[in-house]
Amino acid sequence: MNKLVNTLRESMELAGLKDGMSISFHHHLRNGDYVLNMVLEEAARMGLRDLTIQATSLFDIHMPLAGHIESGVVSGIETNYISSGLGRILTKGILPRPITFRTHGGRPAAIESGRVRIDAAFIAAPAADCQGNINGTDGPAACGSLGYAYADARNAGRVIAVTGCLRPYPLTPASIDESLVDYVVQVDSIGDPQGIVSGTTKITRDPVGLCMAGYAAQVIEHSGLLTDGFSFQTGAGGASLAVTEYLKPVIKQKGVTGSFGLGGITGYLVDMLNEGYFEKLLDVQCFDLRAVESIRRDPRHQEISAARYASPLAKSAAVNSLDIVILGATEIDVNFNVNVHTDSKGLIMGGSGGHSDTAAGAKLAIIIAPLFRSRLPVVVDRVLTLSTPGKTVDVLVTQRGIAVNPKREDLKMRLKEARLNKARLPVYEIDELKHMAEKITGKPAALKRGEQIVADIEYRDGSVIDHIYALS
Amino acid sequence: MNKLVNTLRESMELAGLKDGMSISFHHHLRNGDYVLNMVLEEAARMGLRDLTIQATSLFDIHMPLAGHIESGVVSGIETNYISSGLGRILTKGILPRPITFRTHGGRPAAIESGRVRIDAAFIAAPAADCQGNINGTDGPAACGSLGYAYADARNAGRVIAVTGCLRPYPLTPASIDESLVDYVVQVDSIGDPQGIVSGTTKITRDPVGLCMAGYAAQVIEHSGLLTDGFSFQTGAGGASLAVTEYLKPVIKQKGVTGSFGLGGITGYLVDMLNEGYFEKLLDVQCFDLRAVESIRRDPRHQEISAARYASPLAKSAAVNSLDIVILGATEIDVNFNVNVHTDSKGLIMGGSGGHSDTAAGAKLAIIIAPLFRSRLPVVVDRVLTLSTPGKTVDVLVTQRGIAVNPKREDLKMRLKEARLNKARLPVYEIDELKHMAEKITGKPAALKRGEQIVADIEYRDGSVIDHIYALS
Repeated sequence: MNKLVNTLRESMELAGLKDGMSISFHHHLRNGDYVLNMVLEEAARMGLRDLTIQATSLFDIHMPLAGHIESGVVSGIETNYISSGLGRILTKGILPRPITFRTHGGRPAAIESGRVRIDAAFIAAPAADCQGNINGTDGPAACGSLGYAYADARNAGRVIAVTGCLRPYPLTPASIDESLVDYVVQVDSIGDPQGIVSGTTKITRDPVGLCMAGYAAQVIEHSGLLTDGFSFQTGAGGASLAVTEYLKPVIKQKGVTGSFGLGGITGYLVDMLNEGYFEKLLDVQCFDLRAVESIRRDPRHQEISAARYASPLAKSAAVNSLDIVILGATEIDVNFNVNVHTDSKGLIMGGSGGHSDTAAGAKLAIIIAPLFRSRLPVVVDRVLTLSTPGKTVDVLVTQRGIAVNPKREDLKMRLKEARLNKARLPVYEIDELKHMAEKITGKPAALKRGEQIVADIEYRDGSVIDHIYALS
Repeated sequence: MNKLVNTLRESMELAGLKDGMSISFHHHLRNGDYVLNMVLEEAARMGLRDLTIQATSLFDIHMPLAGHIESGVVSGIETNYISSGLGRILTKGILPRPITFRTHGGRPAAIESGRVRIDAAFIAAPAADCQGNINGTDGPAACGSLGYAYADARNAGRVIAVTGCLRPYPLTPASIDESLVDYVVQVDSIGDPQGIVSGTTKITRDPVGLCMAGYAAQVIEHSGLLTDGFSFQTGAGGASLAVTEYLKPVIKQKGVTGSFGLGGITGYLVDMLNEGYFEKLLDVQCFDLRAVESIRRDPRHQEISAARYASPLAKSAAVNSLDIVILGATEIDVNFNVNVHTDSKGLIMGGSGGHSDTAAGAKLAIIIAPLFRSRLPVVVDRVLTLSTPGKTVDVLVTQRGIAVNPKREDLKMRLKEARLNKARLPVYEIDELKHMAEKITGKPAALKRGEQIVADIEYRDGSVIDHIYALS
């Protein structure tokens, strides 16, 4: 018995792919992923129709998806993130059914509870053996952690490993093991590892970004959380990454050591591990090749599943042990509700990913965002799209000032106390920040939203908390 | 949120333990395990009754179990192995319901399919953190692989980690992670790591054993399987282990390299890895402390779950890729059926463990057994207890001769050909071996079996293939 099949087509036929089925993909190769496009191209050739794409995230490299929607091969999308190029097209309402947006923790919960069914999972496997033992750390398209693919491998009706690097049995380490895999297909290449480094994964040099990073580091410094064993997550945005640089001298000065860095891991967090700022890294996805190299070599840098990362149905998830998270926003409203799904025009250009999971789990969820972008205010009366409920957000940091959620009176007191001790921490009410923004940009005209719902926003607990409407 | 509870009692109360429930244990600490006894002692104090013990194996250290049966705390046992001291008592029929014996692969299949329900799993955790990340490689009671506990952790209603070594969060590596664990209890000690080395885990010096090992090595040499990429499993019995020593020069002379050693891993297999005889070790349980040390340090030495090891419901299991396995027997009959559950008097003194799983999976399943023991023949007309069906057994090796299963005419031809080339391979029919034995021991008197069924033997596919009867 050997699971190797000759072609992707053969694996799809053996998996019994039929019209109307749901097929899944993980996004660890990010904007370098070839597998989703390959599978859909073959599905089109097979004459399949009405497929639902269950992708952990979608990037602009997946633009051919638009054509497959037009031709009826694909009629549904469920995902945690859609990048702006593809998002713009999908906001036009080209899908017959609304997109379902989930979170990185909500998705494995939905799958493992049986609420979401995956008929076949296609797992982009940087290395695999003939029986389907898989890892993300070997081979030319190494992407590091395969954390988002675990739930799919464990729950899909059929599991197909698509690899560009077939290794002798038994492959070790095995992130996903043979007990879960039905077929193995070798292809020329599953993706371009350079594409892993997509989005901003370099520290900003922009003075606005640096200013915000500096304020955020001060908020952390005075939050009372920077004690031995603290834990920290930051996204891959330039300003978020800059917080790590501003934080290092503070940590050093306090003489404390963190327990773990969490989440999508960048080389900056790897540096912090190696420089002794943290004991461990918990890695659900590698954001750059330095992180890939680290997870391959360093046993302190541990791969974790999306469920362990953030599932609300897990007996515990790492986000529940998280102290501090730095997050972005396209908009934040006076109730601290955050939008990371749509831009100020209402076009899809993101998604929650782990945003609302970490905000809900962390003791201190800091949103970093400039007061305005392209002459439009970021602090608004009401977010166009509700991604992360304000009750899970603690602080907003902008270049002009900081606002603390009223539910965190304790934190506000701490920051005010710090000011008495000469810290330069411009603390305002969030309304004041909104007015500052509007003074500069003017009050933006209300958007006229379309009628057709193009996406439902599912919160991590499975409830639909908002919709996105079509824009022509 | 923190899963630490102060006492075992508290964890049992929180887990909602009630009369009639099923509680599970793994046996990686083997005859050094303290956890099963601690839990049952507490259960008795709590006044619980009618519990079913779901243990991967039971050893003589678990002798207090007999008392808990007498007092009604325990009324059922489902397990894959029972050592002889405890087995002797259980064969008396002190349980109100028959024991269910399973195999190491059949057990996770039964659990994962939902056929077997575990209400609470007590996982002896050599190291754990406060959220229930667990490994077997750290701490004073390190036992290495925790492979048998995976199915319990994933499927039990409640999962309780019992540890003697609490480490800071997040513990890495984590064999079982926090997403699966409900409570963590710290105790003084979970077991004596010296007890891991129980049973015979040293190469025999007995000339009969050495003779059989030599024959077995020759069978392997001439089987046609000793090519690059071969794989191998042997138990921890003295004669089985000796096969590794006889095999080394053969492998060297052939100039081949094996792909993996499988199963319960001993220091002898670790040596073979380090000396380049194998590329990898796949380890579901460490049989000695050298194996524990190796799995801790060497990434080529991989922990695997029992499902990946041997589950017939896995999409594939390692046993399906296994070339050669060396197994023992208390009896083997003229149809190559093997008994590893009872001794020649019918007393329980073992169990299948991975015996029938590996026999079914391997290309060549070799039974090594002396022709007679204590003046009783080992080759018999009909085994007292059917553990492993003869159709999955290829060869019997005794000190007086070798018998090939008639279904393996190809192998018989190979061995005969080897004899023409001067190999000293005394190949007989199995009836001839039986007669040889009886010539020495006389034909044994038929045992008068009891009426009461004390155990059902469940084959790996879930079917009941035999029973064990009470002996007073």
